[in-house]
Order: sequence, then structure tokens, then C-alpha cells
Amino acid sequence: MKKALLVVAHGSRRRQSNDEVIDLATAVAASAAHDFNVVKSAFLEIAQPSIPDVIKSLAKKGVDQISVVPYFLAAGTHVANDIPAIVEQAKADYPAITFVVSEHIGASTMMTSLILDAAQS
Amino acid sequence: MKKALLVVAHGSRRRQSNDEVIDLATAVAASAAHDFNVVKSAFLEIAQPSIPDVIKSLAKKGVDQISVVPYFLAAGTHVANDIPAIVEQAKADYPAITFVVSEHIGASTMMTSLILDAAQS
Repeated sequence: MKKALLVVAHGSRRRQSNDEVIDLATAVAASAAHDFNVVKSAFLEIAQPSIPDVIKSLAKKGVDQISVVPYFLAAGTHVANDIPAIVEQAKADYPAITFVVSEHIGASTMMTSLILDAAQS
Repeated sequence: MKKALLVVAHGSRRRQSNDEVIDLATAVAASAAHDFNVVKSAFLEIAQPSIPDVIKSLAKKGVDQISVVPYFLAAGTHVANDIPAIVEQAKADYPAITFVVSEHIGASTMMTSLILDAAQS
């Protein structure tokens, strides 16, 4: 089974902020601690590539599963409504692909450790 | 030495988003993996309490050091300019307190692990 991880960020007018997301997806891909065949990033608004564009490209690559990780700190309307709506449309467009949407990263149980690590380093 | 950890978030019009930050600071405080005497959260804009208000309250408690962790994903102007400016003012107001500002959490080396954990859980 061919698995993809898709890091979805809001998108910023600041190119550097978008580059941080792209670099993060590259770092995730380079990590040894996973079995994803491909790791990509996409943006909900403002920046490119869009989420549908990246899903289309992953579908062309023949992925069977896409795990979507919302790179958001808060469970606002983007996390609660916008991203799920885009994924629902993608499910309809690509019925052979299984989509899994994880919690936004702000809800991660690892966030307390990450904050302490940041504070102590 | 009395040490404080201050998690600084942007602040949202959505009360629930601010509560997520407050709950996170509470979870950090409850973690066994640190030696901070007190852990607080504060907001740069929109929400209360403000960063200066919380620093004032920590000063009254007699803390010797405040570690500020910017709870931001991107190194935008809030991280690069606004938070440092507030901390510089606090240094002038409270010369007996040592202030340390960490990198924003989006730059944490643990972020790749956190994303993989979110994707696989």
C-alpha cells in the first residue's frame, strides 16, 4: 500500500513562512521514523500549492492512502470546517483513496514536551 | 532561583482557541519534566491577559527568571519584532529578572516527530 502524508498549513503572504512549512515537510520526509512513501505540504489559502492540487498529484502517483495533518495551533473554522470540506470533496473525486484527517497539531499530546524542550534549550 | 515559563500566543476572537492555550499551559505546569516554579500563558493581541500584565504578576511573585516561549508556527513579525519589543520593555521595567526568549515552536526540532505522531495516531 502506498501511503502519503500531507501537511496542511494556512498559507501566508510572507514567503518565508510558507517556506518554513515546505522545509518542515522535507524534514519529516527525511526522518527515519515513518513508513510514508511520500510527504508533501499544501496550503489552505493565499499560498500555493493548494490542497486539491497536491491531492491530484498524489492520486496520479497512485497513492492508496493520504494522512492529512492540519498544521494549525487552534481548532478554529479552518480546522473544523474548511479542511474537512476539502477532504470530503477529495473523497468524492478519488474514491479509491483512503483519507485520514488527524487532529490539528495544537491538540497533540506531545505539545507540552515540545514547549518544555523549547523553553529549556 | 524562582523560574517561570510564559507561553505567549497570538490571541483569538474565538474564546475556545484562547482556552486551548490556557489549558496547554496548565498541562505543561502539570508535567513532571521541568523545574519551573510557575507556568503561565499570555496573549499578544485580542485576548487577555496581556504579556505585560502576566510579567507584572510574575514580578510580584518574585520570580528571578522568565522563559518566554512564542506559541507561533511561523517566524512572522509578531515573533521577530512584537514579542522581542515587549520583552525589551519588560527588561527595562524589571531589571532584576532575567528574560530568555526561545525560538517559536514552529522551529522546534521536535516538530517533525510531533507531526508524525499526529499522522500515525
